[in-house]
Amino acid sequence: MTEPLPQGATIGILGGGQLGRMLAVAAARLGYRSHVYEPAPDCPASHVAARTTTAPYEDAAALARFAASVDVVTYEFENVPAEALDAIEARVPIRPNRRALAVSQDRLSEKEFLSGLGLPTAPFAPVATAGELAAALAEIGMPAILKTRRLGYDGKGQARIAGPRDTEPAFTAMAGAPAILEGFVEFSREISVIAARGLSGEVAAYDPGENLHEGGILRTTRVPAELPPEHRTAAVLMAGRILNALDYVGVIGVELFVTRHGLVVNEFAPRVHNSGHWTQNGCAIDQFEQHIRAIAGWPLGDGSRYADVTMENLIGDDIARLPAIAREPGASIHLYGKAEARAGRKMGHVNRAMPRR
Amino acid sequence: MTEPLPQGATIGILGGGQLGRMLAVAAARLGYRSHVYEPAPDCPASHVAARTTTAPYEDAAALARFAASVDVVTYEFENVPAEALDAIEARVPIRPNRRALAVSQDRLSEKEFLSGLGLPTAPFAPVATAGELAAALAEIGMPAILKTRRLGYDGKGQARIAGPRDTEPAFTAMAGAPAILEGFVEFSREISVIAARGLSGEVAAYDPGENLHEGGILRTTRVPAELPPEHRTAAVLMAGRILNALDYVGVIGVELFVTRHGLVVNEFAPRVHNSGHWTQNGCAIDQFEQHIRAIAGWPLGDGSRYADVTMENLIGDDIARLPAIAREPGASIHLYGKAEARAGRKMGHVNRAMPRR
Repeated sequence: MTEPLPQGATIGILGGGQLGRMLAVAAARLGYRSHVYEPAPDCPASHVAARTTTAPYEDAAALARFAASVDVVTYEFENVPAEALDAIEARVPIRPNRRALAVSQDRLSEKEFLSGLGLPTAPFAPVATAGELAAALAEIGMPAILKTRRLGYDGKGQARIAGPRDTEPAFTAMAGAPAILEGFVEFSREISVIAARGLSGEVAAYDPGENLHEGGILRTTRVPAELPPEHRTAAVLMAGRILNALDYVGVIGVELFVTRHGLVVNEFAPRVHNSGHWTQNGCAIDQFEQHIRAIAGWPLGDGSRYADVTMENLIGDDIARLPAIAREPGASIHLYGKAEARAGRKMGHVNRAMPRR
Repeated sequence: MTEPLPQGATIGILGGGQLGRMLAVAAARLGYRSHVYEPAPDCPASHVAARTTTAPYEDAAALARFAASVDVVTYEFENVPAEALDAIEARVPIRPNRRALAVSQDRLSEKEFLSGLGLPTAPFAPVATAGELAAALAEIGMPAILKTRRLGYDGKGQARIAGPRDTEPAFTAMAGAPAILEGFVEFSREISVIAARGLSGEVAAYDPGENLHEGGILRTTRVPAELPPEHRTAAVLMAGRILNALDYVGVIGVELFVTRHGLVVNEFAPRVHNSGHWTQNGCAIDQFEQHIRAIAGWPLGDGSRYADVTMENLIGDDIARLPAIAREPGASIHLYGKAEARAGRKMGHVNRAMPRR
């Protein structure tokens, strides 16, 4: 057994958005301070952190000072530049580790890693040139989706290829960035598993949630997912294999498709995940605390589900519905402290819980 | 209907202990910033507040700056000096209002207020001199408890008088401070009601909890309390009468004794209350958010209880039991970020929840 970080230790968090904000609150609940590192001023996490550094990820001196002031570093997003991590890792552990980050930062590495573990994924092929795209399409077929290998999220950096006339625009849309072609997976549902691995190697998973996307953005997550028990077990085991293979420490979000032929892994995020927000009002220990427990060397907490929950993201103007939501019995509101409601911007979420059926 | 405070507004909190800390977290959850005012450096609330002022309550200039930077002021303790409130109230509303504070700051005013409402209290009499003490004892009888009228908490500033030989030491223990003699109430249980009143006058109450004290400090609160239904209703109605009589806005904690002759009001605290911490893991909206909702002009939230909960305070060395508690299923830990574990110091609490029977 490793000793947990002592009371009063400081958790460094790269990224100051809503995930960093909710991680900082969970850290406080376990007696830790948070130091948030974020390029943008007045970020949501800064409102609940003991300390905030506002500096770009290219500022080596600021990163070194940040690393020297904390006991462990974690992150709320997977696109942290590698150079920033180099500066930090020389001084303090990064959890989850760099391999998890590297694998998930690149859709091709991610798919190769997953299929290397024997987990079912969509068919895929790397695409750097128009010729490679033609060859990949010949192999995988249409419809297919061309995606940049890096830096895509919420549906950005993606182009669907339904027929031959989509090919050239799709390739052009990648703007020369290395890409990956993925075969289209016919699925009935999208689910995700939020799982965790502790410093001592123990693994825990929350009940899978069922996700509904709109315009590439998560709209709702519902637990329990409509899922036969064997799929539930399979999903959790898949998440466990990913965690163990990466010698992972922290919470992971694994997205899966439910198909006629079983589960297919879509992707994973090496961090707390929007589809795990329901745990705040459905479990004794939510995903944010579970993550802090893991990276701080605590035993993992009880993630068993006591309620049926639907999490709804409040996106852009959804925030105008607050007065009505505030009156709903069983509705718990979680806002992110963002000043301006822009279209597509996640402003908060609401968890609607009722006793387990 | 009043418009609620807009997103991004700032809640001023007087006092930076654990109650202020948990209020600040709740404020953030509703999209507000917190500005904490606290004389002691590195206070627990400062770790989760957007801003902290470290200054004494006698610093009029600091108080004026604080008041000018916030949209509403609340407090985590009832002994805020009146002069500090004067400086603030000239600029910004204080919720709960000053009358609630004034009444509860003085045990004599409090008892007079309660009995003026027709609520049953222990027999009481003011004691300023040894002669008044003798007269009061003659009227009320023994055993009785002599208490300073102001500034007592967690059993401090109190002396029990069981027989004639206790009289002089008890009077001496008051050190010349104005006091109140209270008759001893023979009770089978101590309960408390956490209730709230919104800006528009609506009232809500949580299920009464049953409290166990040790050495004058709250040890555990358990919901549901072992209480016949009529007592449950009576307790909630009493809290409602207090709230309405004070034109109160915010959360109140009302402590009651269960006696053979019915309920007796012991005292109330014009703030969130240690005996309401169980709501964090038993209700969709906990007492901290309920308080922020009330003072920010939101509708009150759903405080119905979904679990049976026992809240245990972690006092002083109790913190050493953390590793074992961290492994308990259903146990939610809440730590206050206090560096040093001193005897009698509240370091955190743990809520143990299980499905409602």
